[in-house]
Amino acid sequence: MVRLTAIRPVFSNALASRASVASTRSMAAGSKFVKYDWEDPLNLNSLLTEEEQAIHETAKSYAQENLLPRVKQAYRSEEFDPSVMREMGELGLLGPTIQGYGCAGVSSVSYGLIAREVERVDSGYRSAMSVQSSLVMHPINEFGTDAQKEKYLPRLAKGELIGCFGLTEPNHGSDPSSMETTATKTANGWTLNGAKTWISNAPVADVFIIWAREVVDGQKGKVRGFLLDRQKGIETPKIDGKLALRASITGSVFLDNVQVGDDALLPKSGGLGSPFSCLNSARFGISWGVIGALEDSISRARDYALERHQFNRPLASFQLVQKKLVDASSAATLGLLGAYQLGRLKDEGKWCPDQISMMKRNNCGNALQHSRTLLDIFGGNACSDEYHVGRHVANLQVTNTYEGTYDIHTLILGKAITGIPAFAN
Amino acid sequence: MVRLTAIRPVFSNALASRASVASTRSMAAGSKFVKYDWEDPLNLNSLLTEEEQAIHETAKSYAQENLLPRVKQAYRSEEFDPSVMREMGELGLLGPTIQGYGCAGVSSVSYGLIAREVERVDSGYRSAMSVQSSLVMHPINEFGTDAQKEKYLPRLAKGELIGCFGLTEPNHGSDPSSMETTATKTANGWTLNGAKTWISNAPVADVFIIWAREVVDGQKGKVRGFLLDRQKGIETPKIDGKLALRASITGSVFLDNVQVGDDALLPKSGGLGSPFSCLNSARFGISWGVIGALEDSISRARDYALERHQFNRPLASFQLVQKKLVDASSAATLGLLGAYQLGRLKDEGKWCPDQISMMKRNNCGNALQHSRTLLDIFGGNACSDEYHVGRHVANLQVTNTYEGTYDIHTLILGKAITGIPAFAN
Amino acid sequence: MVRLTAIRPVFSNALASRASVASTRSMAAGSKFVKYDWEDPLNLNSLLTEEEQAIHETAKSYAQENLLPRVKQAYRSEEFDPSVMREMGELGLLGPTIQGYGCAGVSSVSYGLIAREVERVDSGYRSAMSVQSSLVMHPINEFGTDAQKEKYLPRLAKGELIGCFGLTEPNHGSDPSSMETTATKTANGWTLNGAKTWISNAPVADVFIIWAREVVDGQKGKVRGFLLDRQKGIETPKIDGKLALRASITGSVFLDNVQVGDDALLPKSGGLGSPFSCLNSARFGISWGVIGALEDSISRARDYALERHQFNRPLASFQLVQKKLVDASSAATLGLLGAYQLGRLKDEGKWCPDQISMMKRNNCGNALQHSRTLLDIFGGNACSDEYHVGRHVANLQVTNTYEGTYDIHTLILGKAITGIPAFAN
Amino acid sequence: MVRLTAIRPVFSNALASRASVASTRSMAAGSKFVKYDWEDPLNLNSLLTEEEQAIHETAKSYAQENLLPRVKQAYRSEEFDPSVMREMGELGLLGPTIQGYGCAGVSSVSYGLIAREVERVDSGYRSAMSVQSSLVMHPINEFGTDAQKEKYLPRLAKGELIGCFGLTEPNHGSDPSSMETTATKTANGWTLNGAKTWISNAPVADVFIIWAREVVDGQKGKVRGFLLDRQKGIETPKIDGKLALRASITGSVFLDNVQVGDDALLPKSGGLGSPFSCLNSARFGISWGVIGALEDSISRARDYALERHQFNRPLASFQLVQKKLVDASSAATLGLLGAYQLGRLKDEGKWCPDQISMMKRNNCGNALQHSRTLLDIFGGNACSDEYHVGRHVANLQVTNTYEGTYDIHTLILGKAITGIPAFAN
Repeated sequence: MVRLTAIRPVFSNALASRASVASTRSMAAGSKFVKYDWEDPLNLNSLLTEEEQAIHETAKSYAQENLLPRVKQAYRSEEFDPSVMREMGELGLLGPTIQGYGCAGVSSVSYGLIAREVERVDSGYRSAMSVQSSLVMHPINEFGTDAQKEKYLPRLAKGELIGCFGLTEPNHGSDPSSMETTATKTANGWTLNGAKTWISNAPVADVFIIWAREVVDGQKGKVRGFLLDRQKGIETPKIDGKLALRASITGSVFLDNVQVGDDALLPKSGGLGSPFSCLNSARFGISWGVIGALEDSISRARDYALERHQFNRPLASFQLVQKKLVDASSAATLGLLGAYQLGRLKDEGKWCPDQISMMKRNNCGNALQHSRTLLDIFGGNACSDEYHVGRHVANLQVTNTYEGTYDIHTLILGKAITGIPAFAN
Repeated sequence: MVRLTAIRPVFSNALASRASVASTRSMAAGSKFVKYDWEDPLNLNSLLTEEEQAIHETAKSYAQENLLPRVKQAYRSEEFDPSVMREMGELGLLGPTIQGYGCAGVSSVSYGLIAREVERVDSGYRSAMSVQSSLVMHPINEFGTDAQKEKYLPRLAKGELIGCFGLTEPNHGSDPSSMETTATKTANGWTLNGAKTWISNAPVADVFIIWAREVVDGQKGKVRGFLLDRQKGIETPKIDGKLALRASITGSVFLDNVQVGDDALLPKSGGLGSPFSCLNSARFGISWGVIGALEDSISRARDYALERHQFNRPLASFQLVQKKLVDASSAATLGLLGAYQLGRLKDEGKWCPDQISMMKRNNCGNALQHSRTLLDIFGGNACSDEYHVGRHVANLQVTNTYEGTYDIHTLILGKAITGIPAFAN
Repeated sequence: MVRLTAIRPVFSNALASRASVASTRSMAAGSKFVKYDWEDPLNLNSLLTEEEQAIHETAKSYAQENLLPRVKQAYRSEEFDPSVMREMGELGLLGPTIQGYGCAGVSSVSYGLIAREVERVDSGYRSAMSVQSSLVMHPINEFGTDAQKEKYLPRLAKGELIGCFGLTEPNHGSDPSSMETTATKTANGWTLNGAKTWISNAPVADVFIIWAREVVDGQKGKVRGFLLDRQKGIETPKIDGKLALRASITGSVFLDNVQVGDDALLPKSGGLGSPFSCLNSARFGISWGVIGALEDSISRARDYALERHQFNRPLASFQLVQKKLVDASSAATLGLLGAYQLGRLKDEGKWCPDQISMMKRNNCGNALQHSRTLLDIFGGNACSDEYHVGRHVANLQVTNTYEGTYDIHTLILGKAITGIPAFAN
Repeated sequence: MVRLTAIRPVFSNALASRASVASTRSMAAGSKFVKYDWEDPLNLNSLLTEEEQAIHETAKSYAQENLLPRVKQAYRSEEFDPSVMREMGELGLLGPTIQGYGCAGVSSVSYGLIAREVERVDSGYRSAMSVQSSLVMHPINEFGTDAQKEKYLPRLAKGELIGCFGLTEPNHGSDPSSMETTATKTANGWTLNGAKTWISNAPVADVFIIWAREVVDGQKGKVRGFLLDRQKGIETPKIDGKLALRASITGSVFLDNVQVGDDALLPKSGGLGSPFSCLNSARFGISWGVIGALEDSISRARDYALERHQFNRPLASFQLVQKKLVDASSAATLGLLGAYQLGRLKDEGKWCPDQISMMKRNNCGNALQHSRTLLDIFGGNACSDEYHVGRHVANLQVTNTYEGTYDIHTLILGKAITGIPAFAN
């Protein structure tokens, strides 16, 4: 054990870090305090680069000005407007962490900020965007050939093409290792057969990333990724009657003897690690996005509680109402901080999937729980789509489930902590 | 709205920040992952300076080697060993953020790390230390004269003197503005009368920071701080029968016509802002400390779950057990990250009391809730003091209450968010 | 203190109660056990009379055979089929506790059983029925003249007329004492002006119970009830874009100089006690109904968990899934038992509104919480209306809010326990 | 489907049940209400026989007058006063449901009421009593010979002898089927070897019910019960350092070649069903007892909240405080109602172990959760044993664990609902 007074002199001269500078400053700071900012309680903004702050601003303006005005009608009518994707592409919001191919090449934190701002309006819009960026452009960039990248990435980045990601099958939600879709090797290519379901963007997709188990000479092999254009043998019926995420479009993908050439294979893909790599990226984005939806719920509930009076007082003056706001605010603040730290670790090459599970699970679970509690502040008006929070509540149930349910991430983390897999327990 | 591709080139050359460096690196990083560290899931350690890491190590070693071996007996017998304070003083752990006077002058994050490691053993030891550092040395440093500082700080820093902090009164726990203790101006000094209760360290204290309402010429004025030696008129009976925090000592302070000179006044104190300044510092430390207790609970529950078998399997293989560990781990990780960010903001002069309320409340509430859940893993053995977690559970109920109850911090934050005070609602 | 051996002989001969008979029988029963019935864990059925069991069966058959087949489409299209009301009327399900006027005159427990079975299909259908029975027929029966009763009750009982209940105003949800709607005395009757909102059945209603503050000679007086036919000056626009309860129809009621005769007044109404009497009856029914929705959620989640396999096992074999079912089952069982006891107390003249608040609040809160948890079992399919539970979840948010929000009932009970009103705190 | 108006006439004449009488009465009752009784919100008392009411009164008086005055000291000093058992015996509180042998032969509901009143003072006292009644007298009565019954039951009923129950082993808490203690057949009797732990009453016990696996001719057989006097080879060291249940005494039982005759065997015991029969009885009592502790917590928290002022108002006027009281009150009320119904089913021969699991789990879980929440009302005073609720909180953690942990009962019920055992999952 080294005494602190021995430690301190050794290091203090050598350091010009945030910490030591701060330490010195604090002596002068005394007890002067900054003003509390309920929209950024722990000053996340101060941790962002100027570039990130500018990106944040762009995403926020776009979402508030272009998405918010149409979300109510989109949700009511269960319709997705593909021009949303082109608008996002125009601003550089698609595949933003990719270097080259017309992509912005920004930090993972920037990607998170974009997801947060789009989902502040609606989880459906964020889902459509996540699919394009993390589940379509990412695997092409990671596992594709130069030719594939050059052919597809620029047009996907612009939103000229819309992509979808076919992993989940009707009977295998949480356990993709039981995949039934096959890609059988033919003379010049592959024949794909199988069915995928709950596929975001599928009905309007031009491009399909399809995961299938390869069959070569009758032998089943690894799961591989294929990059397909819409073509003969692909059917993508829309799923109707959704109770949530109605502003995005969801469908099945049926593959009936789809014939493709060898160039449809993503050659660097192999094994479930490949689609999981996509999920890692998407889950990271979700962990930011859902906090955006929660922040919007807080903001709207706060406004309502300040304006609405009962018993001759604003609702915001009631202890039971304040507690709801406070609980939600703490969860949003810490969830965002965790997502931020994860983003930095990601870009520093210090991350791992279990960390993503922690933040995806924590933030989705909390966003759902607290948006539900906040919804109660609206009383009878909770039921009306005019107040938006009911829509967030419905959406967040889905975000808590897709890309690994809450319980599956519990078990991923349980294994990470104990070393013991309990998935089939 | 500025397009990202426009933003990116503008800033990218100018930046040498963590973010942009990282962004570049991430391209190379590909899908290589680090190993998940369940004891530091989001790599807080990487955010610490080398100095802070060394301080952390010192505090951890001391606590594990010197405090852990005696805590069981101390708790059973409800006795406090004053030599603990001298040992801490020897290592520089007391008043560590203070510059000069034999204090280490380290960062607030360092202070937090010390609290975390001491409370990993027991909240009572951390409480004794917090009182000395944040509630006794801090106000002397902030509100005292040079003479007071020079006389008291070095000996308090060494643990030669033990201090206590008299704010809370029997009838005024959450509302110190109703303080009844008075300091009446006399010709050459002051006469103090009143009663304080639930005062940590009081029965063994040499030095007393007493908050009292000044009475000058029969007029009641502001609350002022006084720095007293143990003397005639001060009684400090121990409170027996405590159900928690039994390794620290607690008492009342009765002030019966205590006569002191003018030099007993802390001259820069005035108004409740002064004791609140102390509480801010102490609450900051608590927000770190309780996570230490939670981390110890996680670690012990994990060990037990791995070793203990039922139905021919380790408990750790059961989903219901894994969920407990995972929930606790997420809460500890994010709570620590929030406390860290708060510490940095503090030293950068960007903090405010509402932020402290958020982290004190969140971390105390979560440490309590999750340590309770973890305790259930121990089954019948939960009841035995051999397993330590039951002690943490009892202690953490108190930490969730003192220095502002959970509900009071809810209302502080409720006011911060809505602008409406609801304390008396 | 009387020794038990002294108590026992005194009473044992005199008693032929359930308890003492049972006590004797238990000696013989030894350790033989009945089979556990997960659909009625504490054997509520054994507490029902044969009549009640038969009524239960009628309501269940009707709901499953006639309501279930049309609910999905009704919910999707946000349309209410008025023939539902006539079918219920045909079976005697409307106003069933009323004696005479073609009503069945059954027990309150019977009324509860009907609500439970209708809401097992959908809260919207139960709401439509509750309005007719508790909020329209009940006040006519309680506060009306014989002429009013004879004119309206038989046709309401048959479902030939549909009624609605106008109490809530746009600005006064939880606090009806601030009512703004007025009934101004005229020479031969009354002129009504005002606006009501979130009124179930309003757009299709033939009959309106309107609560208004009487104004006589310019003086505002008590709140009185009025019984109106649809007529000039009444507008009832439908509220679109509801996020829940879409199988029932909801609207506003605008009253613009509606002229009615003296015979429109419900003469025995006076003060807020009158509409509260209606709410008491409705809340009692809700406390039964929501458990029906929860029971359906349990049953469907159980079926799904048994059928759906992941990791080569049924979901029902996973501890995390079992816990969800078990928690929900306990809450449903005890909630039902409480509602039953309340019904018996009601019919014995031993009830009070605070008891109703307890059961309305407890059962609505639990039904909502547990149906949400159960929904997670469905994974991605939770989002589809094919699985019904998502619809229950959306509906139950509303039932937890209407007829007194969860928080308002908290404060009603808080006052009942402490004697201190904290509504405006 | 039979119309209600058709059902009603058929049955109404034939019935003279509570329900139909009540139904008629309700018509007259109108809107007159009884006064809300916060100590018995749903009028459980009205469901008790006069005998049960008298027993309830006896138990309550005894506990308040004789146990309450000594509990604080007993808990502090971790000492059990055996005269408690003789006092209970004197009043007929021990083995009260047994017919004959000096036992009272009362209903199971009476037994529950006794447990509730004793645990209203302290779970430790109730535990000592439960062991005597359900775990010692019950198995003698169920599985013993007439000679065993006549020799032991009268003296156990009087509290002259104190018994304990040795089932749990150091390595087998939740899974008694792995029992290691053996009873090896000898020429004239049995030799017992093994170790039991966490055995209530053991250090002061005169009589031991020991469960051991029989070994005959070297072959391991069923688990059998043995009835032993304290004798050579039995060691019962006290467990010190308990963090809860300190008013009862707990120890290990070490059996080192204990030689007993054939008459030590409980001949009708065989298999784990026998000790489980005892556990069923004990768990039933616990499901009542813990509600007593919760009711005491409610009552004390309510008193404190009414007396204690902060911000110039009683704590009881704060919404956040009222919510705590209301939540606890609802849970206590419904938990009691469920325990009551279970008691009636038990005596009617209509019960099963899964029902007991439901009520033991639900009531223990709720008593623990809500007493913890109520404790927060006491602020800093929560830590003092003067206020009693902290003691309940500590105790209730144990009651939630012993006699089947919360999670084990979850899995018992999970199996009951789904048919799938998940204990080893």
